[in-house]
Amino acid sequence: MSKQPKNVYVSFLGGVGEIGKNMTAVEYGDEIIIVDCGVSFPDSNYPGLDAIIPDITFIRQNINKVKGIVLTHGHEDHIGALQYFLDDFRNIPVYGTSLTIGIVQRKIGQRNSRMYHVVSAGDTVSIGSFSVEFIKVTHSMAGACALSIKTPLGVVFVTGDYKFDKSPIDNKRTDVKRISQIGNEGVLLMLGESTNIERKGSSKSEKLVYQGLENRFIENSSKRLIVACFASSNYRIQQVLWLAKKYKRKVVLAGSSMKGIVEVASNCGELDIPKGVLVDSAANLKPNQTVILATGSQGEPLSALKKMSKGEFPKFTLSSDDVVILSSSPIPGNEKDVYDVINDIFRFGANVIYDVMDDIHVSGHAYEDELKYMLSIVKPEHFLPVHGEYRHQAIHADLARNSGVKYNNVQIPEIGDTFAVSKKGMVLARKIPCGEVYVDGDTLLDGDSVILDRRNLAQFGMFMILCAVDTKKARVDGPIEIVERGIQLDPDRKDRIEEIVKETVKNTDYFENDVSDTALAVKKSVRKLFYKDRKFPVIVPVIIEA
Amino acid sequence: MSKQPKNVYVSFLGGVGEIGKNMTAVEYGDEIIIVDCGVSFPDSNYPGLDAIIPDITFIRQNINKVKGIVLTHGHEDHIGALQYFLDDFRNIPVYGTSLTIGIVQRKIGQRNSRMYHVVSAGDTVSIGSFSVEFIKVTHSMAGACALSIKTPLGVVFVTGDYKFDKSPIDNKRTDVKRISQIGNEGVLLMLGESTNIERKGSSKSEKLVYQGLENRFIENSSKRLIVACFASSNYRIQQVLWLAKKYKRKVVLAGSSMKGIVEVASNCGELDIPKGVLVDSAANLKPNQTVILATGSQGEPLSALKKMSKGEFPKFTLSSDDVVILSSSPIPGNEKDVYDVINDIFRFGANVIYDVMDDIHVSGHAYEDELKYMLSIVKPEHFLPVHGEYRHQAIHADLARNSGVKYNNVQIPEIGDTFAVSKKGMVLARKIPCGEVYVDGDTLLDGDSVILDRRNLAQFGMFMILCAVDTKKARVDGPIEIVERGIQLDPDRKDRIEEIVKETVKNTDYFENDVSDTALAVKKSVRKLFYKDRKFPVIVPVIIEA
Repeated sequence: MSKQPKNVYVSFLGGVGEIGKNMTAVEYGDEIIIVDCGVSFPDSNYPGLDAIIPDITFIRQNINKVKGIVLTHGHEDHIGALQYFLDDFRNIPVYGTSLTIGIVQRKIGQRNSRMYHVVSAGDTVSIGSFSVEFIKVTHSMAGACALSIKTPLGVVFVTGDYKFDKSPIDNKRTDVKRISQIGNEGVLLMLGESTNIERKGSSKSEKLVYQGLENRFIENSSKRLIVACFASSNYRIQQVLWLAKKYKRKVVLAGSSMKGIVEVASNCGELDIPKGVLVDSAANLKPNQTVILATGSQGEPLSALKKMSKGEFPKFTLSSDDVVILSSSPIPGNEKDVYDVINDIFRFGANVIYDVMDDIHVSGHAYEDELKYMLSIVKPEHFLPVHGEYRHQAIHADLARNSGVKYNNVQIPEIGDTFAVSKKGMVLARKIPCGEVYVDGDTLLDGDSVILDRRNLAQFGMFMILCAVDTKKARVDGPIEIVERGIQLDPDRKDRIEEIVKETVKNTDYFENDVSDTALAVKKSVRKLFYKDRKFPVIVPVIIEA
Repeated sequence: MSKQPKNVYVSFLGGVGEIGKNMTAVEYGDEIIIVDCGVSFPDSNYPGLDAIIPDITFIRQNINKVKGIVLTHGHEDHIGALQYFLDDFRNIPVYGTSLTIGIVQRKIGQRNSRMYHVVSAGDTVSIGSFSVEFIKVTHSMAGACALSIKTPLGVVFVTGDYKFDKSPIDNKRTDVKRISQIGNEGVLLMLGESTNIERKGSSKSEKLVYQGLENRFIENSSKRLIVACFASSNYRIQQVLWLAKKYKRKVVLAGSSMKGIVEVASNCGELDIPKGVLVDSAANLKPNQTVILATGSQGEPLSALKKMSKGEFPKFTLSSDDVVILSSSPIPGNEKDVYDVINDIFRFGANVIYDVMDDIHVSGHAYEDELKYMLSIVKPEHFLPVHGEYRHQAIHADLARNSGVKYNNVQIPEIGDTFAVSKKGMVLARKIPCGEVYVDGDTLLDGDSVILDRRNLAQFGMFMILCAVDTKKARVDGPIEIVERGIQLDPDRKDRIEEIVKETVKNTDYFENDVSDTALAVKKSVRKLFYKDRKFPVIVPVIIEA
């Protein structure tokens, strides 16, 4: 009989110390299952990038152990990186609810469709020697599940993103009964999401938004309504469709992801589209007969709402006949983009209703009291706070300790950490290769150097120093040209640079060295001119032989 | 008798359509007074800049008309640009309360001290044919005033930054009585600040912070307390000093602006430093005998708190013996910087108390109900909402109309607008040259091109194409080198670029043209390769004659 492995290993490829890019590996013996595979969206610290995805070196090194990928729900930060790893994951089954798998397949096409397995909340699937139970939780979209991953050493309970919505639109509440049972049977380790730990009390129900939106329908009965929300927010979209029916308006979808995901959600039975409400075009309708459901609630550059705010939306131009409702809240880091759009819409004389002003949005993530409640029913032996920046995790760790988890049984995972856990305890066992891979259009940028260059270019600009050198006479031949981009050098500084070039050329021994040595020496000397100002422009000397 | 001018002109050099950079010119006949002269702080859209200051072309063109500069209060967004215009304003008197002038002089030294005139709230000064009354308002710092500017055609009432604090620390309330009198006598035009129009109800009193801070002193009696706030927040600093005395702690100031402004405020009598509380060093004190009052509440790069969060503060390293209180709220755009600092402090095991968690901060700006109250007592004939982004101004404009100002007597000023106002009405009269001047270290960058380059460099990176051309044979001589910074070109793309260079060289007629024409043509063709991806890298061909 083979020796039984003594620990379950949990490795974090993302989703800790940050919001987004959720990806975790649960390993027992020579089997691994992956939980989620998401992207994060770059802030201004990552200029020009489209997305950031996990570094899966660890997975590639252990690809033969990987028995399956389980997805908690269909948001980009949980599923968005799958499309970049199709080759790696070719033979690995992916499990998720119908809406989750529907959204994944919409993104990556039907390629290799035997890879995908649709499950329902309540189902348990066997993956290698693990058995994984999907448990219904409420969130801002349908099909969200917590996972109870049974291993030979005990249960690893993954909350996924959740809240305890007491009056969800589809009447499907978080399965508190089942979670409590699992808690009573014993949970070895819980991974709990931390997003809203800073918010006191409990989150509000999605149903609350109905009243807020209905008030806007009533107050603005003579105007066109434009409602912006995430395409994946099927509950929000559902309520707009119901209100449109009640107030005899037609709904037009704007934005390709809005059209695509509405179709997926409807096909999955997660969206009830009242007959005749959805139309392809508003061309023959008066503004007050129309609702536009649009993408762009985060101020995304190419979204329908952004185009409207720039006067570049093909179908109509905003005016005082329009009321724009942002049924959303800016994701941290997006504030400026969102408020730019709002300011620009006001400039057309249209009215804008947005989060800070009214009850037109609720969060999909549990607040402090809900997180406490989850801890009280799961009663885990060990706890790792996930899905949050470090401060969220630190506060969540405190909450867990105050909720009865032993002090040493709570740790704060960071990216690349692998914890070994068993009845004996939980320790940081090893570090796995980890980091970020940057998606820039079709290119995956490996490593930080491109991003560091971009940051320096943005902060300080760059300049080139061009000249020809007569190496026989060790002197500059012709003029020294300085080409600036993103920097303005004053004449004194330019003179000093020219002096440095001439001195350096004069002092180079062209018996032993060539112009590339001169270039390097010039760069070093010129760089020093900027130190005292704490500036680090990119300097590119181009020195050629005459 | 000379003809009496028919209008007062109000020109906006900043402070409208944005938060910050407040500067307004009030003109009658051939006399101008300038109200405030502030900076704004660049967000990620302005990479690498230290500050943005108004373009004062209009003032320079009319410098002989300028009779005085009046300052509402001493915050950077109202006084911070003065230091850049010392030459322009050499002979122009500057008026402000003692703390305001004290802060200005601390920044720019005592140079030309006859330029500065200290006034007290309640004073009226004659400036040319204007008379300007300074009226006490409460704000987050002492010495803040509204201005009643009497012109021959009526009163222009400038609120400045204000709130109605009913229990201010120094017991000096906003002078409602005087403002009401001025309102009853008739106000031709009011410029009202709009910062907090989105917040319902009324702002909380500065005094409320006392209880929040005291609770933290009590709960953490065994720990070192580090309180971060703006150096200019003399009321906040006052309360910390009082609490330190009460709980027998010593206060150490960290950060040069904290030390400097505390000295100024104390000299002005705006700060009561209890005897023996302030010490130069905490070296001989136990942590629980210490309060550190530090700069860095906005996550500023070189501030004391930032250094602590990086473990680079020379005096001590943070640990679980420390409690850091951020008595502040992130200024929009600074969220990421602030939360980075908070996350890093948690990593040391220290606890952090910050805005969303507790009553340790209140805003210095009036909320909606206060703005409404101000309108009700000033009862202006005309109204211009200022100090806010466009959405704040638009909502404030609505509020003014709903508060009884005639529809057409309310307009939304944008930067560069000059309004002509008289009993007859208010119209947009002309546009003045306006814009932004960027401060980058010691350099003032004129124009947008440097910033546009930086944005493109940051978003897309840059590359150079280097080669030599034998113009006699119209062919490339030697290798074509491509040097990338902030971009990663794939090999196919590089091959295609080399082809383009070779083709372009081959097709150039070097009888008529030279290599600079080749460079231009190469740039144009290569640029097109990136269009379909909507990318715009900076491309620099360096083509020389072999």
